[in-house]
Amino acid sequence: MIYLDANATTPLLPEVLEAMMPWLTGGFHNPNASYRGAKAARQAIDTAREQVAALIGAQPDEIVFTSGGTESTNTALKWLARLVGRKSGRAITSAIEHSAVLKPCETFEEVGYRLDRIGVNSLGRLDLDALRAACASAKDGGGFASIMWANNETGVIQPLAEACAIAKEHGLAFHTDAIQAVGKIPVDVRETPVDFLSLSAHKFHGPKGVGALYVRSGCRFEPLLRGGGQESGRRSGTENTAGIVGFGKAAELAKQLLDSGDQSIRTMRDAFEAKLLETITGCEINGDPDHRLPGTSHVSFERCEAAGLLILLDDMGIACSAGSACMTGKQQPSHVQKAMGFNDAKAKSSLRLGFSRLNTLEEAMQAAEAVLKAVEKLRRVQGSGVGPVTVYTP
Amino acid sequence: MIYLDANATTPLLPEVLEAMMPWLTGGFHNPNASYRGAKAARQAIDTAREQVAALIGAQPDEIVFTSGGTESTNTALKWLARLVGRKSGRAITSAIEHSAVLKPCETFEEVGYRLDRIGVNSLGRLDLDALRAACASAKDGGGFASIMWANNETGVIQPLAEACAIAKEHGLAFHTDAIQAVGKIPVDVRETPVDFLSLSAHKFHGPKGVGALYVRSGCRFEPLLRGGGQESGRRSGTENTAGIVGFGKAAELAKQLLDSGDQSIRTMRDAFEAKLLETITGCEINGDPDHRLPGTSHVSFERCEAAGLLILLDDMGIACSAGSACMTGKQQPSHVQKAMGFNDAKAKSSLRLGFSRLNTLEEAMQAAEAVLKAVEKLRRVQGSGVGPVTVYTP
Repeated sequence: MIYLDANATTPLLPEVLEAMMPWLTGGFHNPNASYRGAKAARQAIDTAREQVAALIGAQPDEIVFTSGGTESTNTALKWLARLVGRKSGRAITSAIEHSAVLKPCETFEEVGYRLDRIGVNSLGRLDLDALRAACASAKDGGGFASIMWANNETGVIQPLAEACAIAKEHGLAFHTDAIQAVGKIPVDVRETPVDFLSLSAHKFHGPKGVGALYVRSGCRFEPLLRGGGQESGRRSGTENTAGIVGFGKAAELAKQLLDSGDQSIRTMRDAFEAKLLETITGCEINGDPDHRLPGTSHVSFERCEAAGLLILLDDMGIACSAGSACMTGKQQPSHVQKAMGFNDAKAKSSLRLGFSRLNTLEEAMQAAEAVLKAVEKLRRVQGSGVGPVTVYTP
Repeated sequence: MIYLDANATTPLLPEVLEAMMPWLTGGFHNPNASYRGAKAARQAIDTAREQVAALIGAQPDEIVFTSGGTESTNTALKWLARLVGRKSGRAITSAIEHSAVLKPCETFEEVGYRLDRIGVNSLGRLDLDALRAACASAKDGGGFASIMWANNETGVIQPLAEACAIAKEHGLAFHTDAIQAVGKIPVDVRETPVDFLSLSAHKFHGPKGVGALYVRSGCRFEPLLRGGGQESGRRSGTENTAGIVGFGKAAELAKQLLDSGDQSIRTMRDAFEAKLLETITGCEINGDPDHRLPGTSHVSFERCEAAGLLILLDDMGIACSAGSACMTGKQQPSHVQKAMGFNDAKAKSSLRLGFSRLNTLEEAMQAAEAVLKAVEKLRRVQGSGVGPVTVYTP
């Protein structure tokens, strides 16, 4: 199988699994206990904290380990909403956020917050003027902003430094869902002074079930999960030592690759797209070409239902997902593509392919070949009608 | 090393690690995707859900996977508090709960709830009359009750069926923190009709970083973590497939052992305690002898500081913890021992030992020998003064 769904999740790198194994076997001790084995676990967690911090230019004590990206975003957003208070609060986010940001924000709306979903242009980039206007009007009532660093469907990288600066100008706290960006492009909280940043291990070859929330030193913060007082009181619950260690190792390896300047992921993705454009008529690459994650390809195929393509591609051993990011069972085009102004037909005819360091150029070429075959077959079979897409792409 | 801190955490059983490995390697796919590998992951999660449900007599769709016990208790309690509303709400719990229940409840108190911490007798069992009185007075204003199934420090099993019945009589929703009980004694939600029950994998040889919340079918429930809608919308976040599969396997193995009627853990614990009582003067076993977890031993030693004992025992290769359950750095006796009426000297002179299926009778005897030596040495060295204990026992 050729796995091209790296935006959904990624396999563990062998070095990551190797780093985890001691903590899944002999090193099982509760890191909060007092005996030797426990202290070794505590030390391993400290090392992982340094590794994760280094990946985003943070201090180790600014990293709070969580159970994943969704816990991180929920923790940050619920705290920000509490900090503001509900009477005149304003939650400012974008129309293309992941549901792990949109859904919590919608619950704030239910209790009286005004929720702004700032739009994007047809290339999927945030409308900074609209953000500025929203922040200006939030100034007096109080509010916060949460803008994603890179989009999970299109891979479009947002103008994060500008967005953060605008929020700060108006005195608003700023959170970013950087789950798709961290480990794939340089993310540095010294250069982009966000208050809170959510990240997840399994998007860059770390384990599932572990993530982190960056909390800028000096920012007020109260935890979502309370209990034993782990993570310096900021996230209670017995630490998942193996998961945290794997996260740390994955962060170290991602940093090494980023620092090396290696461009092979981008090369694969570009070669894949060039081949598609060359061989398939009515094929369009979506998203701002100057601001895209190196490994994400979001492509539309005229007169070609994505749901059908996915079935054919699965049969040909290619694992990818629908660009339309519908939730399982829901038959509507994704909110991201809607925000970009795609019509329904186009939104239902898009694929998302995610390349990672574990793919090869040869795989990219084989995948392009397979997509060509699938598109040709589907166009022969289905005519021009476009049906529902029911595939969930997290 | 002889590991006797099973109440803090337990090692993975080899079968559990073996069950997890495929999902840490080739089976890494996001269970929400549409291709074959993803479907296999989905199926593995479904199997684990059946295994965990079977352990507590639940239906599979009553099990919501979480990141651990603390997330489970926080999720249940925050939902119950929201359900009641804050104006006249009453949160009824016990004085001996784990901090993962007490701390969230204290935040409810801050926003106006009345918080009742029902006391226990000197053997550590809940005062049912006091519970009844609190529930009766909560009847009109609305409230909920949360009582632990077994205590983490003393191992004392609470009169859960009675407590649950009392809450129900007065129309209150009932949650139980069964984290120390599940997998060690029979816990069956058909016999004890709690509304919500929290459990954790790593207390019975499953992995850290995974737990579950049982939500009785038909109970109103809203999630704490919102996003991609995983767990039937009840807990969002990409599933930790390997962790969940390990949890399922551990549940299956725990059920097998419970069903077999095997008493070896109790035998070891009892032999250990008999040896202590026989050889050490001023030694007392704490907690209701008729209602204790089979593997937990909570022992006090007159004129013997637990902090010193732990250091000596660590040197002798015995890993256990202080019965006084202070959080690291805090120098006060545990709230559990206080609730049982222990004076400070006794509270600071207690050890907690936790036996599991991976221990042997020989280890239990060796540990008793080591405790004897440590007590003798300490009594020789320190005289009668009892100093601070600063060891965290989760």
